[in-house]
Amino acid sequence: MFNKVSIIGCGLIGSSILRAVEKKKLASKISVYDKSNQVMEYLKKNFSVNICSNLTEVAKDADLIIISAPLSSYKEILLSIKSNLKLNSILTDTGSAKKEVNKIVNNLGLKNISWIASHPIAGTEYSGPDAGFSSLFENRWCILSADDQVADDKIENLKKFWSKLGSKVKIMSFEDHDYVLSLTSHLPHAVAYSIVRTAINNEDKFKNDVIQYSAGGLRDFTRIAASDPLMWKDIFFDNSENILKVLDNYSKNLDEIKSAIENKDSKKLLEIFSSTKKVRKEIIDAGQDTEKPDFGRK
Amino acid sequence: MFNKVSIIGCGLIGSSILRAVEKKKLASKISVYDKSNQVMEYLKKNFSVNICSNLTEVAKDADLIIISAPLSSYKEILLSIKSNLKLNSILTDTGSAKKEVNKIVNNLGLKNISWIASHPIAGTEYSGPDAGFSSLFENRWCILSADDQVADDKIENLKKFWSKLGSKVKIMSFEDHDYVLSLTSHLPHAVAYSIVRTAINNEDKFKNDVIQYSAGGLRDFTRIAASDPLMWKDIFFDNSENILKVLDNYSKNLDEIKSAIENKDSKKLLEIFSSTKKVRKEIIDAGQDTEKPDFGRK
Repeated sequence: MFNKVSIIGCGLIGSSILRAVEKKKLASKISVYDKSNQVMEYLKKNFSVNICSNLTEVAKDADLIIISAPLSSYKEILLSIKSNLKLNSILTDTGSAKKEVNKIVNNLGLKNISWIASHPIAGTEYSGPDAGFSSLFENRWCILSADDQVADDKIENLKKFWSKLGSKVKIMSFEDHDYVLSLTSHLPHAVAYSIVRTAINNEDKFKNDVIQYSAGGLRDFTRIAASDPLMWKDIFFDNSENILKVLDNYSKNLDEIKSAIENKDSKKLLEIFSSTKKVRKEIIDAGQDTEKPDFGRK
Repeated sequence: MFNKVSIIGCGLIGSSILRAVEKKKLASKISVYDKSNQVMEYLKKNFSVNICSNLTEVAKDADLIIISAPLSSYKEILLSIKSNLKLNSILTDTGSAKKEVNKIVNNLGLKNISWIASHPIAGTEYSGPDAGFSSLFENRWCILSADDQVADDKIENLKKFWSKLGSKVKIMSFEDHDYVLSLTSHLPHAVAYSIVRTAINNEDKFKNDVIQYSAGGLRDFTRIAASDPLMWKDIFFDNSENILKVLDNYSKNLDEIKSAIENKDSKKLLEIFSSTKKVRKEIIDAGQDTEKPDFGRK
């Protein structure tokens, strides 16, 4: 569907896109680049696509460029490729925060390039090119954001691209995206990091016990607390305003539970616990999780 | 291995024990009782064991009595059965908090009865007798706690019982149990309830979006926030001292992340995120979770 697709950054997400584009034959030519030598070696060994040695080369003549690198590297990447972008091409990314990145792109003053941000809500707790797989995006949402002046047919094109990767596509403003994701993804990550740290920052005496008996709840949190540190540091900085706001709301909710425990307020606790029970059912009904007990771990 | 095993309370855990004891033929006679009429109807329809209409009847002549009911119901249950307990029998339970319950049992002044608390670290987010299954305890830990005067052969007997259900058994003091579990299970539940409440207590405008895009992290938390409300209210009350203490430590860890975000302290955030990444590996190495990405949801 595109003559040339270029992927900048080939970790879990980038390499999954690469695999899917190759498998589904969505481009006549695929070019890739990653700033890590180790990743480049992996790509050379495992793929027969055009592996570029620098950003200028990977950007050239691409009809669709996908930046799939940490948010903090966008500025440098964009400055390197801006004069090599093809007229009428689409520039997109896969980042988890949008508002700051959008400012950076707008400041470049690109002409005749359609910047449409993408956020595939897909991933695992593993990172790196060997963790990727072509079906990662199947039945997952992908959120697109673009300014008003972007042509509808370009948005339609990118929408088709993600649909071919198996995703369900939704259009959302940059601002709404960052707010919704601060609740569904960024807050859970902040909380997971804190709880795992609380459990292990504990006297050594009980360290082994904590690991051993983690099936009582803790292990669920360790999955997302195992996500890529650099990527998450960037997300927390880029979306700090929303994240700090929802963290405050969260602390209030936690204090409410604390007070109810202190005051032995059964009614309040039961009310809180019952309200959250419903949410899981809604998530399963929306096809966003499995209804198998224990995530079907067994 | 026992002449008569009696189970008081037949929800997820009690009915799973019932299924396993029946399947593995660990008792010549099994008696069960549940105070809910609905549960009793379910048991009558689905099991051909001795279904008792009251506590006195279920306790009589049992060599092993297992209380698998909410912690807040123990006092009433124990007062009803205390004069019907068989000499030299074993009294156990399956509760998630131990210190308070142990006080209640000690206050009864039971003679020639071995009270040994059990806590199988097993369960799913579902509750009720239809959610149980006989393999629930396989490869899961079961923690036993008993006072010093309890005879070793009785502890050995109960240990064998859980081993036959497939569990790995560990002995721990009542106090250590409650502290370790406050970290591995009770804190995660408090946090999960708070986060799900934060995400849905949100303006209605975004409610559907939050459900829709929950795969970014939130959905992992909803599993444990869907656990039985009454059971969790009781646990929070019975283990309030430990829980309030670890919640304070947790809040400090969360504040550390907040400050690092506010101060754009990359080094600190990376240090926090890297430390938690290791824990997951240790949990998987300890056989307490699956290493399949995304819990093997796909």
